[in-house]
Amino acid sequence: MPYQDLQIHGAVAMHIPELNIPRVVIIGGGFAGLNLAKRLLGKGLQIVMLDRYNYHTFQPLLYQVATAGLEPDSIAGPLRKLFKEEENFFFRLALVQKIIPESNTIETSIGNLTYDYLVIATGAKTNYFGNEKIANAVFPMKQLPQALDLRSHILQNFEKATLVKDYDEKQSLMDFVIVGGGPTGVELAGALGELKLHVLPLDYPELDFRQMDIHLIDGNDRLLKGMSEVASKKALKYLERFSVNVWLNTTVTDYDGREVTLSNGKKIITRTVIWAAGIIGNLIEGIPKEAITRGNRILTNEYNQVVGFENIFAIGDIAFTKSEKYPNGHPQVAQVAIQQGKTLAKNLISMIKKKGKMKPFEYKDLGSMATVGRNRAVVDLPKWKFQGMFAWFVWLFVHLIAIVGFRNKIIILLNWFWNYFTYDRATRLIIRPFFREKMQNMSDSYFK
Amino acid sequence: MPYQDLQIHGAVAMHIPELNIPRVVIIGGGFAGLNLAKRLLGKGLQIVMLDRYNYHTFQPLLYQVATAGLEPDSIAGPLRKLFKEEENFFFRLALVQKIIPESNTIETSIGNLTYDYLVIATGAKTNYFGNEKIANAVFPMKQLPQALDLRSHILQNFEKATLVKDYDEKQSLMDFVIVGGGPTGVELAGALGELKLHVLPLDYPELDFRQMDIHLIDGNDRLLKGMSEVASKKALKYLERFSVNVWLNTTVTDYDGREVTLSNGKKIITRTVIWAAGIIGNLIEGIPKEAITRGNRILTNEYNQVVGFENIFAIGDIAFTKSEKYPNGHPQVAQVAIQQGKTLAKNLISMIKKKGKMKPFEYKDLGSMATVGRNRAVVDLPKWKFQGMFAWFVWLFVHLIAIVGFRNKIIILLNWFWNYFTYDRATRLIIRPFFREKMQNMSDSYFK
Repeated sequence: MPYQDLQIHGAVAMHIPELNIPRVVIIGGGFAGLNLAKRLLGKGLQIVMLDRYNYHTFQPLLYQVATAGLEPDSIAGPLRKLFKEEENFFFRLALVQKIIPESNTIETSIGNLTYDYLVIATGAKTNYFGNEKIANAVFPMKQLPQALDLRSHILQNFEKATLVKDYDEKQSLMDFVIVGGGPTGVELAGALGELKLHVLPLDYPELDFRQMDIHLIDGNDRLLKGMSEVASKKALKYLERFSVNVWLNTTVTDYDGREVTLSNGKKIITRTVIWAAGIIGNLIEGIPKEAITRGNRILTNEYNQVVGFENIFAIGDIAFTKSEKYPNGHPQVAQVAIQQGKTLAKNLISMIKKKGKMKPFEYKDLGSMATVGRNRAVVDLPKWKFQGMFAWFVWLFVHLIAIVGFRNKIIILLNWFWNYFTYDRATRLIIRPFFREKMQNMSDSYFK
Repeated sequence: MPYQDLQIHGAVAMHIPELNIPRVVIIGGGFAGLNLAKRLLGKGLQIVMLDRYNYHTFQPLLYQVATAGLEPDSIAGPLRKLFKEEENFFFRLALVQKIIPESNTIETSIGNLTYDYLVIATGAKTNYFGNEKIANAVFPMKQLPQALDLRSHILQNFEKATLVKDYDEKQSLMDFVIVGGGPTGVELAGALGELKLHVLPLDYPELDFRQMDIHLIDGNDRLLKGMSEVASKKALKYLERFSVNVWLNTTVTDYDGREVTLSNGKKIITRTVIWAAGIIGNLIEGIPKEAITRGNRILTNEYNQVVGFENIFAIGDIAFTKSEKYPNGHPQVAQVAIQQGKTLAKNLISMIKKKGKMKPFEYKDLGSMATVGRNRAVVDLPKWKFQGMFAWFVWLFVHLIAIVGFRNKIIILLNWFWNYFTYDRATRLIIRPFFREKMQNMSDSYFK
C-alpha cells in the first residue's frame, strides 16, 4: 500500500515545544480523535495530533466520491484548518510506528515524542481475513485516495468496454461485485444502480446496459445485519429496482483479478470487486499482547484506559470497550467513536485536574440508517423504524449536519440538488497519476 | 495496487461504426477541439473525438487548483457528458501515435482509425528548451494532474518545514521560484502571495512567514510581455504587496532539485520551481517536416489546412497560421483556439457540403487580462486598458462565463465568495498516489 510511509531520514525531529503543561498526544484525526481534541482545547493542555493524512475524512460519504457524486474535497476537513489559531495545539503529518510505554515515548516516521497522556484513535482498515491474493486484487474503500482510485477504475472500465467485442470480456468490465452487505455495501450497490439507470447509458450509448450486473455478497442471512429485520427486508426490496443480485449466506473464496469464486460454487467474471466485508484495527507495535483482542482491537476498561496502563487510552474503531449493555464490545461505527471522544475529553480533564470522578463510557445508540438510491432509505431509531422517501430525507439531513465545515455542507447540498434534479453526476473525471505512462503501458500490454 | 490488474484479452479495436456519412476525426478536446465539435453536431457528419483525458480542462484556472483555491472537478468538463445524447458523436480515450496521410489513417493506443477529415487540436505542452535536467526537477502546470501534484507538493513542503531546524533547509521548503512572467506566472505569484499573507500563517503558526520568498523570473524586460506596458507596470506594482522578487532579463541556467542558478549568477535554494516559461506543440509522428515550424507548431494556410494536405487541419496552440495582421502567427491563447474551432466548423461544412466559399481565419482580439491577488487585475481591451478593483471584477466575470457547465460556474462562484470573505482556502488536501515512493525519494535526496 502507498501512503503508509512518511519516513524522513537524517537530522529531523518533531520540534514540539516543551511547555510546562501536560501533553496529550492523539494518534489519528478521525471521528474519535477529532471530537476528543476539540473538547480539550483551552483547558491548559498541550495537544499534539498525529495523522498520516493532513485531513479528516467523512467516511460515510466515501461511496459517493467513488461513484462520481461528490468531489473528494467536500467530504474532507483539513486538520490544520479545523484547529487554526488554537493555542497549544500542534498537528504533525506522521506515521506512528511504535509505542514505548516504559518511557512514555512514541516512535514516528518524523522522530520520537514523549507524552504524558496518549490516546490511540487509529481506527480500522479493511480486513481481508488473511487472504493476500484477494487483498491484492480487490478495491478497498476506507480512505479518500482509495475512493478516488475506484472512481477512475470504474470509468476507465467503461471506456475500455467500448473497445471490446468479446461478450465475456465486455461483461467483465461492466459487472461489479460488492462484498459485504453492511451500510457501505448496500449504499454502494444503490449508487452503482443509479449510475446504471440514469448516468452511464447517456455517456456510453454504444454499450448495452442490460449487460451491467451488480452483485452484492454477504455472509449473513440478511443485509444490514446491524439493523432491524424490517430495514434488511426493505433494503433488499429497494435494491430490486436496480436488479442487484444479492447473494446471502455466501462468501468469496477466491478472486484472481478476473474470476470471483463464491462459497456456493458460483463463478462471476469481473474486473471490479469492492471489498466492504470487514475491518481490522490499525494496531501499533508496542501494545502488549494481553491488551489486544480479536479484530486487532485494543482492550480498554470502561474509561477507555488500555488494560494495564494508567495514561494510555484507546477510542473509536480500534477500541474494544465492554459495558453492561454491550458485553461483546461496542459496534465499530462513527457514533461510538464520536461519543467516546467526547466522554474521554471530560474524563481526561477530571483526571488531570484531579477534579470530580471519571465517568464510565456509556453508548447512547442514536440509531442507524442507510440509503438505497434516490428517494429510498431505511432508518432505525431506538423507538421508531421507518423506510422510504421520508427516511431518505432524514438520511440526507443527518449526513449534511454531520459533515465537517460550513463550506462542505453547502457544496454537498448543491451537488445533491444537482444530482437529484438532473439525474446526473458531475465529477466523473479519470484522474490518475502518471497517466500518460499508464496509457502507454496499457497500450503496450493490453492493446497489442 | 489495482492500477495494473485490468487486462483486456483478445482482439481490441476502436469499434467506431462505419456510417455512410463523412467522418471527421478530432484529436484533442481542448478549447479548439471542443468548439469545433460543438458546431459540427447535427450536420450529417460522423464526429470522432480522441483525447488522452476524459475531460476538457479549463487551463486559465489551473493555478487556482494548484494553490488550493478550487476543486479540480470544478474546472473540468467530462467530454462524454458535454456531448451526451448527441447522435453520430463518438468519444474515445486514446493517445494518438501516428498519422498516415497516404491511407487517411491514424494509429492510436487503442487501434487504427480511418478518417475523411482529420483535425489536429492537440495543443501544447511545457517547453524546457531541451534541458532534461531542469525538466526532471521542476513542476509544470499544463494539466489537471500536474496542478494537483503541485498542490500536494506545496502543502507537504510546509509540513516538512515544521520538522526542520536548519535555516537553509527550512528556507528551501518555504521558498518558491516561478519561471515565466506571462499570465500564468504572474497569477501564480499572486496566488502564492495570498497564501503567504492570509492562509498559511494560520495553518502553520510554528513557521515564520517572513522567511517565505517568492521569486518570479522572466527573460523579457517586463512582465506580461503580450500585454500593454501599463499592464506590465501595474502587475509589477501589485506583486510588491506580496514582496515578490521579480527578476527581469533573467533566465534559469540550471536546477538540480535544490539550487537554482540564474543567468545573472545568482543562486536560489528551493525545492519548488514552477515552470511556466514556454510551450511547445504536442506533435504527432507522421506530419511531414516541411509542415513543422518553430515551437513544434504545424504550418497551415489561412483555412487551417495543414500545408500539403486537403483534408488535414490544425487549430489552436499547435497550429501556426499566418495572416496579414499576424505575419508571425497568432498568439497561443485560448481565444485563438476558440475562434479557430468556430471558423473551421463553418469552413468544413462549406467544404463537405460544397456550399459557399471557405472563409480565411481572421483573429478578433478580444483583449487579455491577468489577476494579481485579491481585488487586483490588469485588463487590456482593444480600445480600453484598465487596472485595479474593477479590472478584477471583470476578470472574475469573464472567467466565470467562460467556464464549461452551469454547475461548475456555481461551484466556482461559491468558492470564490468563500475564499474572498473568509480569507481562506478550502481544498488543501495532500492527496498523492505512490506517496511512499515520493517521500522516500525525497528523504533520500534532501534530508541526508
